[in-house]
Amino acid sequence: MSNPVVVEVVRGDRVESTHRGAGAVVDADGRVVLAFGDAERPIYPRSAVKALQALPLIESGAADKLGLTDAEIALACASHSGAEAHVALAAGMLAKAGRDAGALECGAHWPLGEAAARALARSGGRPSALHNNCSGKHAGFVCLACAGGLDPASYVSPDHPVQRAVTETLAEVTGTPLGEENRGIDGCSIPAYAIPLGALALGFARLATGRGLPPRRARAAERIRAAVAAHPAVVAGQGRFDTEVMTILGASAFTKTGAEGVFCAALPDLGLGLAVKADDGAGRAAQVMMAALLSRFGGFGAALDRFVAPPLVNWNGVVVGALRPAGALA
Amino acid sequence: MSNPVVVEVVRGDRVESTHRGAGAVVDADGRVVLAFGDAERPIYPRSAVKALQALPLIESGAADKLGLTDAEIALACASHSGAEAHVALAAGMLAKAGRDAGALECGAHWPLGEAAARALARSGGRPSALHNNCSGKHAGFVCLACAGGLDPASYVSPDHPVQRAVTETLAEVTGTPLGEENRGIDGCSIPAYAIPLGALALGFARLATGRGLPPRRARAAERIRAAVAAHPAVVAGQGRFDTEVMTILGASAFTKTGAEGVFCAALPDLGLGLAVKADDGAGRAAQVMMAALLSRFGGFGAALDRFVAPPLVNWNGVVVGALRPAGALA
Repeated sequence: MSNPVVVEVVRGDRVESTHRGAGAVVDADGRVVLAFGDAERPIYPRSAVKALQALPLIESGAADKLGLTDAEIALACASHSGAEAHVALAAGMLAKAGRDAGALECGAHWPLGEAAARALARSGGRPSALHNNCSGKHAGFVCLACAGGLDPASYVSPDHPVQRAVTETLAEVTGTPLGEENRGIDGCSIPAYAIPLGALALGFARLATGRGLPPRRARAAERIRAAVAAHPAVVAGQGRFDTEVMTILGASAFTKTGAEGVFCAALPDLGLGLAVKADDGAGRAAQVMMAALLSRFGGFGAALDRFVAPPLVNWNGVVVGALRPAGALA
Repeated sequence: MSNPVVVEVVRGDRVESTHRGAGAVVDADGRVVLAFGDAERPIYPRSAVKALQALPLIESGAADKLGLTDAEIALACASHSGAEAHVALAAGMLAKAGRDAGALECGAHWPLGEAAARALARSGGRPSALHNNCSGKHAGFVCLACAGGLDPASYVSPDHPVQRAVTETLAEVTGTPLGEENRGIDGCSIPAYAIPLGALALGFARLATGRGLPPRRARAAERIRAAVAAHPAVVAGQGRFDTEVMTILGASAFTKTGAEGVFCAALPDLGLGLAVKADDGAGRAAQVMMAALLSRFGGFGAALDRFVAPPLVNWNGVVVGALRPAGALA
């Protein structure tokens, strides 16, 4: 019932805060390499599965039909910082579909990246739906609809053909029935389906390898892997975990954050999928969990040390503590 | 060992995340009215004890000698949003001590309030130490030093007479020996001492009533209570918990947030002190815990409902879930 403490926050020589969590490392045949905590309880993966939700865009031929670039495909998988480059890519995708920002149904918010938010404020601007960290995923949905001759309106609804295709793909890749009974609504208004961490890890092992996927879908997975590896700065933004880690690891790892303390990753060289969730929804905990697993299973040596045990630095630049993996992850 | 789940985050009809925590409600005679989780383990109260750390400023006569206003005393107890009004108050305190922002040793950061941060960016400005959410507390330390004819330099050091006076007061009011063995360094560089939640609640019951304090200190506590009640917008900022709750409750409650999921409160009418900490350091959880306790013990009826069970609203304004108290706090 109670997941173990897997991350500690230390100040001085005292543990100030603790994070509990669960996770799974699985290969494409469903073999569980590691599991800790309750990896069978369904959790909302949130934005961590954007790459799986982007499969229909490629698999259907829509991306090729509209001439989407690798950077645009990477944006469809992104929780981006809302920097100018991200906004321009999203607008470009919509233009290729013959639409504009008015077609987006994600809502507007200030850029997730602090520097991007300040730059927008400094320029006297206001946030639009293009700045929403999910605008690439949503632009991808609009592209999928338009390339197929469908009206994109209400594409966030579970009953829209686009959402039905996305949900069906997510269900197949993770081997999890998805319906009204395990559905919530995400921050950007699309359905959020609850899926066990073990099933999410399996889905990412399949994304990593193409194994267990039909040929068209396996090729779509390969295209997505190449796109995100070529454009790590598109998937998140400067200074953020996914971008920094993928810049270091290149095509060896695709990592993706999700709200409420979720992280998923694909390790193509090793054929592994990873999924973790911090019980309390803390992103800082999920990052340490993911970094610890990547470090242990990825064979990346000391390259990820500053993510595994990030120091706590105060406003005068003094190191006053650190986060560190604990228990099963220590 | 394991604290109970006290706050749940619900999306759709599923619990998405959970927060564990501990807390205590104590009267000025040390009688424990309620305790849940481990209320005896020392925790860093962080900024939640700024009002106790401000007692020497009043008690010593420094505040009167320099002619500090109630708003300035409220700022000494604040984790402010860094809005223009906060910055002006901090600068005014320093001017009364014959100093300027160069005397502050808290470091600089972008305003804690998002609107204030954007306003500063929009004006082309950069954050200074005056924008640091602790600048009022630090300006108070500078005032305490200068009014006593001391050089304020290195006032953040545990050995500086100002810090020694502040630590001694905190130790006496909470009845907790404070020394090197339970000391860390805070975000603003002053010592952070670990104190059990039960002792913190006792300290706040004494702040609430003056009971158990020497006469000068009891009068200083009364002055602080009047100052924060008169200036709730100074203690935090627009839209933030402390400001909103104190605006509703007036002099009936003083609440104060601290980093890493801590909250303390004083209820003068009832003679109670409250202290809670979320294990994982989540501010959202600590807010719900505090609101639930205020609601139960304060007799405030439905006035705090939106803080006890705040809805989760997505970027399109759709209610997709809520936080809610659980277990001992349900």
